[in-house]
Amino acid sequence: MIDHLAILAPGLLGASVARAARHFGAARRITLWARRPEVRVQLKSQPWCDAVADTPADAARQASLTVVCAPVDQIVALTSEIAPALPAGAIVTDVGSVKGEICRQGHKALPAGRHFVGSHPMAGSEKTGWEHGRADLFQSRVTFVTPLPETDPKAAEAVAAFWTALGSDVAGFAPDAHDEIVAHISHLPQVLASTLCASLAKRDPKWRNYSGGGLRDTSRIAGSDPKLWKTILEQNRDEVLRALRAYQDELHGMERALANRDWFEVQAILERGRAYREQFRPIP
Amino acid sequence: MIDHLAILAPGLLGASVARAARHFGAARRITLWARRPEVRVQLKSQPWCDAVADTPADAARQASLTVVCAPVDQIVALTSEIAPALPAGAIVTDVGSVKGEICRQGHKALPAGRHFVGSHPMAGSEKTGWEHGRADLFQSRVTFVTPLPETDPKAAEAVAAFWTALGSDVAGFAPDAHDEIVAHISHLPQVLASTLCASLAKRDPKWRNYSGGGLRDTSRIAGSDPKLWKTILEQNRDEVLRALRAYQDELHGMERALANRDWFEVQAILERGRAYREQFRPIP
Repeated sequence: MIDHLAILAPGLLGASVARAARHFGAARRITLWARRPEVRVQLKSQPWCDAVADTPADAARQASLTVVCAPVDQIVALTSEIAPALPAGAIVTDVGSVKGEICRQGHKALPAGRHFVGSHPMAGSEKTGWEHGRADLFQSRVTFVTPLPETDPKAAEAVAAFWTALGSDVAGFAPDAHDEIVAHISHLPQVLASTLCASLAKRDPKWRNYSGGGLRDTSRIAGSDPKLWKTILEQNRDEVLRALRAYQDELHGMERALANRDWFEVQAILERGRAYREQFRPIP
Repeated sequence: MIDHLAILAPGLLGASVARAARHFGAARRITLWARRPEVRVQLKSQPWCDAVADTPADAARQASLTVVCAPVDQIVALTSEIAPALPAGAIVTDVGSVKGEICRQGHKALPAGRHFVGSHPMAGSEKTGWEHGRADLFQSRVTFVTPLPETDPKAAEAVAAFWTALGSDVAGFAPDAHDEIVAHISHLPQVLASTLCASLAKRDPKWRNYSGGGLRDTSRIAGSDPKLWKTILEQNRDEVLRALRAYQDELHGMERALANRDWFEVQAILERGRAYREQFRPIP
């Protein structure tokens, strides 16, 4: 159990960490800090919040574990800001969707005896905001924990144990390996859903109202926050471009098969897609 | 109310038509015909089936409305097969995903005083088979009804009224206009979901188990029947190719913006995608 948990900049994920930590008894005391004063006032009355700090450093000052929940382009700055206040042995983690640069810079930003260990829970919603937080958000979802070779193994273990306590299945990877994986299984699907909708928007927009469940599901994540995703794509540009180009080859193969009336190849692509889809592990 | 409804080759859609017709009291008598003798035996004991015929012609012989539920490449052949048996004034419709050729040939296949009117309910599931049929499958879903200029307007109205009685929202379009629309809102999403999975299958297949809800939803329809979809893509090849090429332009625009680090353009594409996605009519 974490003695004192600090959560900085809670949105959907941060509020869910707080709710889950309270629900599963994963932390004795939970302190939050939010950038906007009016949110700090609202957080004070939440049952999963023991204290609200006025600055990030004040929130982290006594915390054995601090979870930085800011957008990916602000995680390193917040980590640097709290670095001087951290107690000996303190661990800092985050929930950012991209890990390579954040882990390298987070590690450098902390003084000796304080540990940065990157995390990325594969949970979320196209709904953002701390009001939508849920104690069961991490239940049966994978959370990546991404230590560098120079990361203290005990700190990495503590972060993994925290996510496990919140109901998550932990997957350990080097930060760069993580970035390659999520470029394929998260950032590429986002690009496809968004460009599908952007492309359909150029035709008659009323058409969408004729669609069945297929377009609705395929395009769901296109409803996600564009600013947030711009930043994620920015931070993981090289891996996303690699995944996108490999995908475009596949799509071009389908176009060629259709153009050539090569129905054997069309069906072979559909079969390969189905074989992959059928092996998803079931989510309870 | 339809006096005598015949349903030929019931799979998920045909069984759902039968169940819904019984549930909503849309037909007095329901006769089914299935190609496989063992299915005919099983159908006999279903409460939404009054009689099972041994041949398509026998099923349609007294039917005021016959719904042909065979795959798109067998609809015209079945329509021709029952044509000589149809009573005066009989109407034949189908549930095929492509309409242009089927409607033109279906119209030609029937003698004077018998009417072919194409239908396409935008409902389904990656689960196929009559056992998965549901009385509420068409509830609040759009069903296209696609008369030709030469189609008897009263017959088109009767088919529209039938789908309305089953809970569907009817949309009337010329068959070719229908094919252009579904190429964009149904066939293109299928191609994207299938090629996404086919592309990811070339990397480490274990990665899929790390995915959150995003990839799961985006790829759901990749689990659909490849043979069925090969036939749909074959029948609507020209429109699908047009929609796919327009989409590839959009995707290439995203690739270029990422390659050029044009984050303003990346965000603009994401914004356009979200604006489109947010305006989907809610499904109850």
